[in-house]
Amino acid sequence: MVIVFKPGAPEENKAKMRSNLESKGFQINEINGVNMTIFGIIGDTSTLDINMLRIDDAVDKVMRVQEPFKRANRMFHPQDSVINVGGVEIGGRKIQVIAGPCSVETQEQVTDIAKSIKLGGASMLRGGAFKPRTSPYSFQGLKEVGLEYLKGAKKETGLPIVTEIMSPYMIERFVEDVDLIQVGARNMQNFELLKELGKTNKPILLKRGLAATIEEWLMAAEYIMSEGNENVILCERGIRTFETYTRNTLDVSAIPAVKKLSHLPVVVDPSHAAGLWWMVEPLAKAAVAVGADGLLTEVHNNPEAALCDGAQSLRPERFARLMGELKGIARIVGRDM
Amino acid sequence: MVIVFKPGAPEENKAKMRSNLESKGFQINEINGVNMTIFGIIGDTSTLDINMLRIDDAVDKVMRVQEPFKRANRMFHPQDSVINVGGVEIGGRKIQVIAGPCSVETQEQVTDIAKSIKLGGASMLRGGAFKPRTSPYSFQGLKEVGLEYLKGAKKETGLPIVTEIMSPYMIERFVEDVDLIQVGARNMQNFELLKELGKTNKPILLKRGLAATIEEWLMAAEYIMSEGNENVILCERGIRTFETYTRNTLDVSAIPAVKKLSHLPVVVDPSHAAGLWWMVEPLAKAAVAVGADGLLTEVHNNPEAALCDGAQSLRPERFARLMGELKGIARIVGRDM
Amino acid sequence: MVIVFKPGAPEENKAKMRSNLESKGFQINEINGVNMTIFGIIGDTSTLDINMLRIDDAVDKVMRVQEPFKRANRMFHPQDSVINVGGVEIGGRKIQVIAGPCSVETQEQVTDIAKSIKLGGASMLRGGAFKPRTSPYSFQGLKEVGLEYLKGAKKETGLPIVTEIMSPYMIERFVEDVDLIQVGARNMQNFELLKELGKTNKPILLKRGLAATIEEWLMAAEYIMSEGNENVILCERGIRTFETYTRNTLDVSAIPAVKKLSHLPVVVDPSHAAGLWWMVEPLAKAAVAVGADGLLTEVHNNPEAALCDGAQSLRPERFARLMGELKGIARIVGRDM
Amino acid sequence: MVIVFKPGAPEENKAKMRSNLESKGFQINEINGVNMTIFGIIGDTSTLDINMLRIDDAVDKVMRVQEPFKRANRMFHPQDSVINVGGVEIGGRKIQVIAGPCSVETQEQVTDIAKSIKLGGASMLRGGAFKPRTSPYSFQGLKEVGLEYLKGAKKETGLPIVTEIMSPYMIERFVEDVDLIQVGARNMQNFELLKELGKTNKPILLKRGLAATIEEWLMAAEYIMSEGNENVILCERGIRTFETYTRNTLDVSAIPAVKKLSHLPVVVDPSHAAGLWWMVEPLAKAAVAVGADGLLTEVHNNPEAALCDGAQSLRPERFARLMGELKGIARIVGRDM
Repeated sequence: MVIVFKPGAPEENKAKMRSNLESKGFQINEINGVNMTIFGIIGDTSTLDINMLRIDDAVDKVMRVQEPFKRANRMFHPQDSVINVGGVEIGGRKIQVIAGPCSVETQEQVTDIAKSIKLGGASMLRGGAFKPRTSPYSFQGLKEVGLEYLKGAKKETGLPIVTEIMSPYMIERFVEDVDLIQVGARNMQNFELLKELGKTNKPILLKRGLAATIEEWLMAAEYIMSEGNENVILCERGIRTFETYTRNTLDVSAIPAVKKLSHLPVVVDPSHAAGLWWMVEPLAKAAVAVGADGLLTEVHNNPEAALCDGAQSLRPERFARLMGELKGIARIVGRDM
Repeated sequence: MVIVFKPGAPEENKAKMRSNLESKGFQINEINGVNMTIFGIIGDTSTLDINMLRIDDAVDKVMRVQEPFKRANRMFHPQDSVINVGGVEIGGRKIQVIAGPCSVETQEQVTDIAKSIKLGGASMLRGGAFKPRTSPYSFQGLKEVGLEYLKGAKKETGLPIVTEIMSPYMIERFVEDVDLIQVGARNMQNFELLKELGKTNKPILLKRGLAATIEEWLMAAEYIMSEGNENVILCERGIRTFETYTRNTLDVSAIPAVKKLSHLPVVVDPSHAAGLWWMVEPLAKAAVAVGADGLLTEVHNNPEAALCDGAQSLRPERFARLMGELKGIARIVGRDM
Repeated sequence: MVIVFKPGAPEENKAKMRSNLESKGFQINEINGVNMTIFGIIGDTSTLDINMLRIDDAVDKVMRVQEPFKRANRMFHPQDSVINVGGVEIGGRKIQVIAGPCSVETQEQVTDIAKSIKLGGASMLRGGAFKPRTSPYSFQGLKEVGLEYLKGAKKETGLPIVTEIMSPYMIERFVEDVDLIQVGARNMQNFELLKELGKTNKPILLKRGLAATIEEWLMAAEYIMSEGNENVILCERGIRTFETYTRNTLDVSAIPAVKKLSHLPVVVDPSHAAGLWWMVEPLAKAAVAVGADGLLTEVHNNPEAALCDGAQSLRPERFARLMGELKGIARIVGRDM
Repeated sequence: MVIVFKPGAPEENKAKMRSNLESKGFQINEINGVNMTIFGIIGDTSTLDINMLRIDDAVDKVMRVQEPFKRANRMFHPQDSVINVGGVEIGGRKIQVIAGPCSVETQEQVTDIAKSIKLGGASMLRGGAFKPRTSPYSFQGLKEVGLEYLKGAKKETGLPIVTEIMSPYMIERFVEDVDLIQVGARNMQNFELLKELGKTNKPILLKRGLAATIEEWLMAAEYIMSEGNENVILCERGIRTFETYTRNTLDVSAIPAVKKLSHLPVVVDPSHAAGLWWMVEPLAKAAVAVGADGLLTEVHNNPEAALCDGAQSLRPERFARLMGELKGIARIVGRDM
């Protein structure tokens, strides 16, 4: 960490800062420039609150040098993490595709879709049972019944299940029934939920918050990991920007950024990013080209009748065709699919 | 709601859409322009999923005409709501000031601060017991012990208590001990928490999410209100933008916007918005000038030693002086303080 | 265009609005719902100022139905436009690559780079002669001398030249010397410059402004086209968001969006978007996968010594290798390269 | 400036960087921490290109310590600058109000408005003659004729004239006729225009770009000042964010930020920020409360018939009433008006 003092900062303030930091076990390396003094702080600064150092009126700037995340940091874990989700490995050479309906609606619907996505090449089944909706008046999911339908579809197809958790009350049930527990964008900084999930050993799919920086996203992963659960898979699903033509802006740059900063796998959800079905295909191709470890795609056998988000769902035939093209791109970027 | 069809949209698609909507009890009013057809949908469209209507390839645009919130909507409740928080009324002519430390640290600290802010003119005491922190390695608050200290300070001063809830597990305890339960920006769309708070009758202070539109914020209020609890106070605390000089960008325009759209009271938290103590004073003045119903300000008797966010805390003397100026501005804009 | 009146809007205001619009030749189709009245306006509304209609206190909302751009609109020009730049066609089946140094430095440098990118498969040479820099104290380009060096490199290699214009004073010179005149992001709404370029018949490369919506970008193209010059090529180069890890956020969704809304070709500049050389390759692949008609990439034979933006330049060897992979992806998405 | 090397950075790279910087006259102060090495660079780093230093693969981060602006920097010019505009001083104790119509329409219109705003307490007249419009099909202003009408109004009232320049071709004419030359938000980084204006000695009103950081805005001022013209007045007019309820988001925090960083005066344009007339009044009050040196407000005697932006214009009566309230707030924050 680097502390920059204002020009003419009183010696007294610098001395106070120095003794304060030294008392906490840090070592100070001082630089005296023309207009200002800089303290380089040596030690594990991840516990230091950057804002506290800024209070002193003599301080001009405080800048972090080391990333504040540790367990998620590639610096201390150079190899890619490969996470095993019910027998399917994410983060290795093979790009995994998670597909399924936005909402679980009936046993028949979810089983049918599960069969067709399996045929199309998907390796996991997603489906919403508990649905976070902007409006309390919108359909909120089939809840426990939805979980049962997902389990039914898994029984038929063998595909591991991915579904979103919204409440800590449900953790026990999810640990039992679900293979990959999704934390939605709106709950990315629901720290209580993250900490409790950190106490399980289930793989967690951590979606990026709508306005979360890459660093905050990795810090949210750190919340889970610091409790002992290192099975975290990150998911980029679009960020909020000024552009309104698409629902969100898919941040493809986040993929190489995360791969550089962290050893955790990162997948892309092109369906939620755009909110427009005709954009899902080009964005899925971009995601594979840019280096994602997997995709999360909405597939529905009857989008017009879907209870939610039909607008962004692919039909099974389109999905199968898309998978063919994605495989070609995967090969070119040195991956299997 | 208005549906715009693409030029040359097949009659068949329009007919299907019409019969679909009519079967749900809506009335359709059709406009035929030069290049396109428009359906005006008459009925209570708040239950209609706008995205579902967009799936049909013949549809160009779907636009909502009525706001999707009802109970929070001023249209159906023209008078300002005045919320009673432990005897203190927010939303009326008097601008209320909620002040206190970012974190509760000791009984002495919080009681001392409570006394001095009461002297300065504040009418409620805020203090964090459960702290949402970006890093799992930062101080997370004194938790239940912090609540006890707040109660101690209330006993001494009579000031109602405002503190943040982070988990549904704590609701019962908060309902007992806290006068105004704060939902933080990160939990603005933690719908499970909102719904459970909606089942209580405690006043809720709902902070705006970092990247929440005004409409989404009011929809979050609607989650609480739709469960029966209409005691919602909104709090603007800065939004995330590209500007990095300030921690967030205080959106003062949101105050008149909310007052126009909704009958709920809205307060401003200038401390979190800027993250810089020297900016709190001018922003507090701007908030009163622009029409806020209250302020939420961090005050600490020893900012340099604060366990969190000292950088944005005012000292009691400054707070008292600021209150004097704020009263002057309040008078000019037709309010008491 | 659709005008929504407030509930209880006086008949007088509606009548005034009606007669005002009818006097301008528009036809009004009125819908009367439960809580509000809607006017559907039929006619060419692209000349109507949407803000003017909002002044009337009885008006709740005004929504545009038709896109405000005409010449750039695919609705009126369904075929893709193919623009001829000095013999190279952009917008057709072949994806074109424009490469070269950020800044022109010496005759030798630019000729060397031109030769190596030609060998690598690029079809046009880019290089900055007039450089827009955030700081007046940074290197501003070789200006006219830079243009001469670019011409020298063209003479040697036959590659058409792409370079940025910053001032209307230079238009005559650019029309003579340059094959594709670039308008930078900062000048996207320099309407005087756009209008003057619209009076030439030179191909224009119009970069998207940092905070320009897709609609504003197409309206900027419309400024050029409305003066008679329909040779506009759009260039996505990243938008400004809250994320600071990358310099800008490459908006890959903008490519399919533009292809749907407009017939104009659209290319991607992955170098400026990220500002990090190691991100250029994955982003270039994403751009080809998502459907771009071309790429604009910085290549430098000695990045460490570059006078600007070396941080985002590829070395010729890397560029050649990247081209190989891009060709593979192009084939899969049905394009040549 | 501070350079942070990656852990395990080769000594060779550090040595090369050191000799490169020393050869440019900088002094290096090296810190060796547990995981990394830091170089503190001493000297005038405003000429160093931060991106160039990032190319070296051994470099992890480069951070600027000193602000890159010099002439605009309060550090080197602690006193507030007071700019004389045709006899009216901006930046001193008195808050100045610039008012007038969005567009100049007729001699009578502008003279009438000038008279009424003078009566209301405004000290300068604004009015658009050359109008930057998103659409080429919207009214573009009366141009030279508009300038003549402004001069006519000045003759009658004595109020100095403020109007926007869009092209370097017009500078000579503007220097002759206009008292305060406005550079619009879209041209904030039209560096050619800025440099030419820097060669005059006319006061310049520099609006903040839609997506400009405070630092970029001050660097744009620096472009003008570095050419010799130090008469720059900054104008905050709203930034682009994700919120769409208001046209832009007025960044009131920018006012205290600019006052801290720079000695230049800063005024606020509440009319363009919101784009809604009923929001102009509360935002104007907030602007005065937060410390602005002046206001720029649209006033029109017949908003419904205005040729542009009527939606955000105040009627003269409302303006006069508003001025009364603003004076009260000014007094409280220690200013005259």
